[in-house]
Formats: sequence, C-alpha cells, structure tokens
Amino acid sequence: MTRPRVVIVGGGFAGLAAAQALRKADAGVILIDRTNHHVFQPLLYQVATSALSPAQIAVPIRGVLGKQSNTTVILGEVTGVDTDKRDVLVDSADRLGVPVPYDYLVLATGVRHSYFGHDEFEKFAPGLKSLADAVGIRNRILRAFERAEAAEDPQAHRDLLTFVLVGAGPTGVEMAGAIAVLVRTTLRSEFRRIDPAAVRIVLIDMAQRVLGTFAEDLSRAAQARLERLGVEVRLGKGADRIDDGGVVVGGERIASKTVIWTAGVAPSPAGKWLKTTMDRAGRVLVGPDLTVQGRPEIFVAGDTASLQQDGKPLPGVAQTALQQGRYAGEAIARRIAGRPALPPFRYSDRGSMAVVGQGFALLQMGKIRASGGLVWFAWLGVHLWALAQPSLRLSVFVQWLWMLLTGQRGSRLIVNHGSTVDAKQGALGK
Amino acid sequence: MTRPRVVIVGGGFAGLAAAQALRKADAGVILIDRTNHHVFQPLLYQVATSALSPAQIAVPIRGVLGKQSNTTVILGEVTGVDTDKRDVLVDSADRLGVPVPYDYLVLATGVRHSYFGHDEFEKFAPGLKSLADAVGIRNRILRAFERAEAAEDPQAHRDLLTFVLVGAGPTGVEMAGAIAVLVRTTLRSEFRRIDPAAVRIVLIDMAQRVLGTFAEDLSRAAQARLERLGVEVRLGKGADRIDDGGVVVGGERIASKTVIWTAGVAPSPAGKWLKTTMDRAGRVLVGPDLTVQGRPEIFVAGDTASLQQDGKPLPGVAQTALQQGRYAGEAIARRIAGRPALPPFRYSDRGSMAVVGQGFALLQMGKIRASGGLVWFAWLGVHLWALAQPSLRLSVFVQWLWMLLTGQRGSRLIVNHGSTVDAKQGALGK
Repeated sequence: MTRPRVVIVGGGFAGLAAAQALRKADAGVILIDRTNHHVFQPLLYQVATSALSPAQIAVPIRGVLGKQSNTTVILGEVTGVDTDKRDVLVDSADRLGVPVPYDYLVLATGVRHSYFGHDEFEKFAPGLKSLADAVGIRNRILRAFERAEAAEDPQAHRDLLTFVLVGAGPTGVEMAGAIAVLVRTTLRSEFRRIDPAAVRIVLIDMAQRVLGTFAEDLSRAAQARLERLGVEVRLGKGADRIDDGGVVVGGERIASKTVIWTAGVAPSPAGKWLKTTMDRAGRVLVGPDLTVQGRPEIFVAGDTASLQQDGKPLPGVAQTALQQGRYAGEAIARRIAGRPALPPFRYSDRGSMAVVGQGFALLQMGKIRASGGLVWFAWLGVHLWALAQPSLRLSVFVQWLWMLLTGQRGSRLIVNHGSTVDAKQGALGK
Repeated sequence: MTRPRVVIVGGGFAGLAAAQALRKADAGVILIDRTNHHVFQPLLYQVATSALSPAQIAVPIRGVLGKQSNTTVILGEVTGVDTDKRDVLVDSADRLGVPVPYDYLVLATGVRHSYFGHDEFEKFAPGLKSLADAVGIRNRILRAFERAEAAEDPQAHRDLLTFVLVGAGPTGVEMAGAIAVLVRTTLRSEFRRIDPAAVRIVLIDMAQRVLGTFAEDLSRAAQARLERLGVEVRLGKGADRIDDGGVVVGGERIASKTVIWTAGVAPSPAGKWLKTTMDRAGRVLVGPDLTVQGRPEIFVAGDTASLQQDGKPLPGVAQTALQQGRYAGEAIARRIAGRPALPPFRYSDRGSMAVVGQGFALLQMGKIRASGGLVWFAWLGVHLWALAQPSLRLSVFVQWLWMLLTGQRGSRLIVNHGSTVDAKQGALGK
C-alpha cells in the first residue's frame, strides 16, 4: 500500500507549521507555494521602510524543509481543488497540467489586501503582503525622496514629500512610525533641497481610533506617540477616491505621490475552490477540528479559516496561523498513525504587540496592557526569537544594533526590476 | 563670484572616487546616476548565485556622500552633453527638462554588456552588470531548479538543469564555479527529483583558453579546477545562435533553459555625447591628464575612457576606475584652487584575482603568479577590505563565515517583481 499523500497549499506560518508537524508521519507530504520563500510577515514593514533587506526576513521554504525527507516542495500557483477526485490543480508550465492528488489537504493560503470594491485604487495605493510588495513600496518611498530632491516645481516637491497611509491598523501605524523615523534619522543629512520639516505623513482611517483591535487607552497612547513623531492622524473618514494626484478624504483632497494601502484584507479564494460555506468576509467556515463540513480530509488553517472561540472570531495574527497549522498537521499525523484524535482546537492568546516609531511599543495580552520603551525592548526580543532561523536572528540583531548606534538603515536600494530580465518571465518562468 | 560647478556622471568606482577627491574643493559638486546606489562590482556574481544579498554589496550613493556638504546627488538618466553651452541633459520627469550646467565635467559612465551585433541574444542570455541584472539572473537560476523539480517531461527536466555561460573571462569563470558550488552544497539535500550529477554547467569561449587576460599557466590551472568541479569547458568556438531552446556552438546545439552572457562589454555612449575621437571599441580617447582633446574641462574616467600605458591599453578593472576617478577629482580640485597641475596619470598595477569555485583563487601581479587555497584566503581578505563601508564588511564577513560553516547561502529568494507595483513605474517613477 502506498503512503497517504498530504498536500499543503501555502508556505506561510500555517502551512509551514503543518508541514513540520508531519515530519515523522508515514506520509508523502507535498507543500505548494507560489513563491520559493517563507516570509516573516511581522517585519515586512521594515523591508518596506529600508530597515531590513528581503533576505533578512525570508528563507527558502526548501531550506526549512530540506532535511524533512518525507516532504517535497513545489513552486506553483494553485488554481483550484477538485474535491471529488481529490486533486489540487496547479498552474505550472512544467507540470503540463498534471494535477497533484491528495488524501489529506491543508489549505493555508492566507489573505491579500482588499480595496473594498475599489480595485482601481490598487494602481495608486499598493498594499503590503508579500516580499515583492515590500520591495515595491520601498522603491516608491525612496524614489519619492529622490524625485523631490530633483524637482524644480515647488508644488511637485511638496506632493512628493507627502505620504498617505490608508488604514490605521498595525501595518498603517507601524509604517507611519517607520517612515517618520526614516525621515528624522537617515535622510536628514543626505538631501540638499529637502527640509525634513516639510515632509508630511498622514494616517487616515474610517474608525474613530487607531489600532482598533487594541484597548482604547493603548490606541490613545499610540496616537499621541505618532503625533509626537509628526504624523497627522485623521480619523472617522475613509478614502473616497485615490488617484495619481493623491487621496480624497471626506471631500478634501490630500495631494500626494505616495499612497500606501494598509486597510483591508480579503481571504484567498480557498472557499470558492471548495464550494463550501464561507463567512461574510469570504473565509472558509471550519469546525472545531479545523476541517470543512462534510470533508473530514480537508483542513483550513490561518487567515483563510473562519472560527469563533468563546463567541468571538480569532484574530488574524501569526500566532493563530501557527497554532492552527500545527494543529492540522498533528491531527493528520494522528489519523494516519491510527492514534486517537486531538481535542478541539483552542487558540492560546500570546498577546499582541505593535511598534510606534523607535523606542516605543504597545502590548496587550489578556488583561495586561503596557506601552513604552521597555515594551519596545521586549518587542525586539520577541521578534528576534520568533525568527526561527539562527542565521536570520544573528543578521537582524546585528542590523538593528547597527541602526540604533549609527542611524544607518540596512537596505536603502532602489532596484529597477521590470525593465530587464524579469519582465520577460512570469513567476514560474513561463 | 559663484563657486565652480563640477558635474560627475556615474556613481561607480570612478565617479565616486572623483567626488570624494573633491570633498574639500571650493566647488558645487553634483553627482548624477541612474540608480541610487554604488555597487561593488567584483562581488556581483555572488548576488547572481545567491551567496550575498543585494544590500550586502551596494550602498546608497547619498549615504556615502551625505556628509560631504559641497556635494548634491541626483537620481537621473543622462541623455547627452551640450559641450558648447556646458550643460548635461538629464531625463527626469521632475526636472521639467532643466539641464544641469557645469564648469568641469567628469564622465564615468562605465560599460554595458555587448552582444557583438546580436542584440536578439539579450532576451535569452542576460548579462551581469547592474544589481537588477544580478537579481534577474538569480531569479532565473533558482527558477530553473524549481521548474526542474516540478517538470514531468524528462527532456524539459534535462534542459532546465543545463546552464550555459557564454564567455570565459573572469565573470564567466567565477559564475561557473559559483553555480557548481551552489549545486554541490546547498541544493543537494533540498530537491527530491534532481540528481546533482545530472546538472550540466557549460562554459564556452571563442578563445583558446579561459581568463585570457591572465598568464597561460594560470588559465590552465583555472580550467583544471573548473573541470574538477564538473564544469564543461568548451573553447575555440563562440555562440552562433542563442534562442529559447539554448545555444548553438560550432553547429552543435546545447539545449538549455538558462544561458548567461558573460562575454563582451561595450562602453557607454559618452563618446557620442561628446562627438569626440573614440577607439575601435567606442571608448573615448583621453590624454595623459584624462581630459578630452580640445576640451580641458571634460574628464573621462574608468571603463569608458581609452588610454594606453607603455604601449598597452589599461585593464578594465575596478582599480583602473578608482585610480582614474581619484586623479580626475584631484586634478579639478587643483585647478580650482590654482595649485600646480598633477603629473600625467599613471596606473599602478595592484594585481588581478579570480575565484574558481570555493577554496581556490588565482593571482597575477606583475611577475608574481600564484593559485590555490592561500590565494583564496587572500582574495577573501582583499575583497572584504575593499568594501569601503564597515557595515558591509561586517555583514559580508559574517555571511561568508556562515556559508563556509553551514553550507547555507545568504539570499536564495525568487522575488517576483514586474507584476505588481514596479511594472507601472520606470526607473524614475515616471
């Protein structure tokens, strides 16, 4: 008898944890991802703001799973699932349309940014989810400064120095703080025609406070800190319009050449592939064992799964994905080995943190709420620790230390892709 | 009286050295480059083969010159020079066509790869000159392995595992060795369907030996070392044709999906801008003071300058560019200060080195010729030392040590640009 085939779609926190939980299983595990790397998402904003380089927060999935001999990694774009034949459909020039069959399936396909029906905003206001997004936003921010330095027209100069972040969740707040620090430290001495005081950073949100998932006093602390860094926080109104010239908020136009979308996320199309019940946001409803109703062989884990606990939806954070991925992998390993099933999944809250600028962070963990410099040190430690690869841990530690001591950023490069080799190839070299 | 304006075009070794030599001059110095970073070219092949990340061999030009208060850096593409009006023409959306006037001009615009009249090869065989080139080639090489792992067709599998380098100069030899090491160390354990022995690396050149600028015994040593690494060295015949399916060499087709152009270089169009005398390769003929005939205010330095010394052309290496750039900057500083002119430029040979794989390098310096492991250690030291920024020196040192101890590469990422943000913007965000 052949070994059962476990297919995992997605190499984020959930998918990777699922694969690792299956390392001793008597199974053939296949992990499929559209990129060749696992990204440490919580530090993505640091790549977008030139603090870290892409290689410091991402590792090849193959490198992580290489020594796990029951596991094969495939670079490919999954386009659907045939739940009757139990096949995953992969779009890859080199597989000649050969589908990947499974006995167990883990869908851990995460989220993308959502423009709430305004997809035309994307062209002018990119979102931050992948490494390519981060490098693209880094290029935009750095280019805006370069263009401002060269600009002869005062109005163009001002528009180029106005940065608008649409959405004041953790990404928006962390980006706004990081851009403010970038302006204050690194850029100050290097431009001849840019007055750091002329740089405007505007953070907008429809909600009445920043960081809506945190407690109110923490939101207030974050906002006060942002304002001390010179960030304009504008609440209660969303973006009516985003175009080449900037953003329209509540009828008022904010002229800007650099708008970044840090607002909504939408789940992957996993629900559509499965033709199963979804919640209003489009996430797949799963049972307490993380399987899909009527399909006990299909698990959904991470941001693309919808599960309530104690009457509240689980937060869309790395810990949820990690814990669910590990649970799904273990549940499958037990079934394959004929061992008793796991008890229902329970999310264990490890707390949430957010950084505002440099030297200040927030922590909310159950009833514990704290903010300030000590929390920031804790944030540094937690994030270094969470970088699972020792090489990255060392590299990021040295980089942060260097940045603190010298004010110099790690990776302030504008690399002009798109015009040369890459434009001729798609993600899979088709 | 206003200060004299010195415009430097190009932020490579020559341009940067010229700017730095002018740091105390009573002048307004403007450096224009089409990228925002200075690249340490000798290690570019290590980015292309995933050993180092782009940020480890490149620094923002602004970062280097930021504290030099008489100097302004502009990101822009120079399109021409009006030698009568003494204007540099810059293509930049934000300058509204305003030219940059000069009193002294240093052209240090380097070289690009040349396909010897076969520009149609470029699409299939990219060259390695810029950071974007290196990242593009890295993507190609890594994707070829990914595609081979997924490929169902045995012929496609073989073609994807065949790498052809066209041109056996230093770049071709170093790339061939680095790919061989990549296959032997990092990739071995991570793929399930790739037999490392099935990987073919072919190095071709029209010449009768590799590394034509080195002594014959060193060429032989390099070739022997390459062959021990499994590289097929094919000499005496060039590429007749390069297309989607591979390379045709002397009537024989080598089927390959990854061909890299490491053969010819062509100088920048500086000669055409100046409408001055050029050598057969298109480089600008300069006098012993590095100025252009009849234009004592225009200096040309580095790869785009043509100068003979003791009846032989100067080698197109970093040292030549560095020494010429420094000379041009100093010569201008002296003229501005009214000090006596420098003696004619003389190139001081610091030797040439080339690495073959890991643990083996060649050295040729005057009559000294050496090869082997000790030379390799010297190579490591010299290149670390030559990285002028202490942060890079530390980062590259740690990375190399890590790679030696663990076999893990620094930056094995396929980042899919071109599809998202970047494709919508040109280099200058137009």
